[in-house]
Amino acid sequence: MSEQIESIARLKNQFSKLPGVGGKTAMRFAHFIVEQESSFAEQFAEAILEVKQKVQLCPRCGYFLEKGQKCQFCDNVSRKKDIICVVAFPKDVIALEKTKSYNGEYHVLNGVISPLQKKGPNDLRIKELLERVKTNNIKEVIMATNPDIEGEATAIYISNILKPLGIKVSRIAQGIQMGSDIEFADVATLQHALENRNEI
Amino acid sequence: MSEQIESIARLKNQFSKLPGVGGKTAMRFAHFIVEQESSFAEQFAEAILEVKQKVQLCPRCGYFLEKGQKCQFCDNVSRKKDIICVVAFPKDVIALEKTKSYNGEYHVLNGVISPLQKKGPNDLRIKELLERVKTNNIKEVIMATNPDIEGEATAIYISNILKPLGIKVSRIAQGIQMGSDIEFADVATLQHALENRNEI
Repeated sequence: MSEQIESIARLKNQFSKLPGVGGKTAMRFAHFIVEQESSFAEQFAEAILEVKQKVQLCPRCGYFLEKGQKCQFCDNVSRKKDIICVVAFPKDVIALEKTKSYNGEYHVLNGVISPLQKKGPNDLRIKELLERVKTNNIKEVIMATNPDIEGEATAIYISNILKPLGIKVSRIAQGIQMGSDIEFADVATLQHALENRNEI
Repeated sequence: MSEQIESIARLKNQFSKLPGVGGKTAMRFAHFIVEQESSFAEQFAEAILEVKQKVQLCPRCGYFLEKGQKCQFCDNVSRKKDIICVVAFPKDVIALEKTKSYNGEYHVLNGVISPLQKKGPNDLRIKELLERVKTNNIKEVIMATNPDIEGEATAIYISNILKPLGIKVSRIAQGIQMGSDIEFADVATLQHALENRNEI
């Protein structure tokens, strides 16, 4: 068994820590590395080290930032400075940017309030958000956390803090997905779509 | 977009070379690495380099071998030396070992004959197999390549070489999978199961 070969077992173990990777897939990845040229492994290892050496999180918005470079959002004068879109993770910023429908700033919370994962408000970048809102004359904060229980709870928690400060807080619209069937929509979504119907 | 951050793009590119990993998953892995402690990245990179430094393929059977160590199959006196099980990849050895039903030696071909992947007989470790068969008084060779077109073709190709040498060549049995339904078996499998029926 290749589990008996310690270095393969160690690499398998590392791969299995990646999100969504189980034991079999991790072993497949480990075997793949063994079967490639040494240069492949070297480039792979270097890319992993490099990303940690070069990339940090912007201390302001929490999105990725190449060290020594300016933040593509915070330091970009062509973006609106009085509106902040709040997301849970950097990947959500990527999804929103793809829409090309938003030209303000971002604030990455680094998670959502989740009792199951033992994440409370203090584990998120909420204090930093408050600081930005207070000192930067922000007009609107868009809550773009996921429309699930934890994302909703986080959006409500933060809006409860911001509203007393006189800040407009909005939530991305929820409803029937574009191109989908009403027939197959879940009850909660359909309820939301009805309640938030727009005049046409 | 984090594709704009070069080092993340490079790491994503490396991950996307792993078998079965598409662009989105590769990006997810890359983000995951960025979000972990530096020590995580260091251990990961080290595990990748270590596996290439420490693991090689046994020049005899083609299975993994920790450098400086003996092959767990070829150099194991408790295993039968006159029977060789031929497989396409090291992972097949792991699957067969799990059955605990085989105690002979192995021979990893490193692939199968595949015109689509431009793999011919000369790209496989067939010459090495012939050498072993000729010099080691082998009584039986079990062809344990996959029961698909390429695996079948490879098994037939090799058996055509070995049989004239007076070697017994066998093929792992094909038939209805244990615990499955005849109703759902494909025609080829069912044909095979009928033709190769055993008296009970």
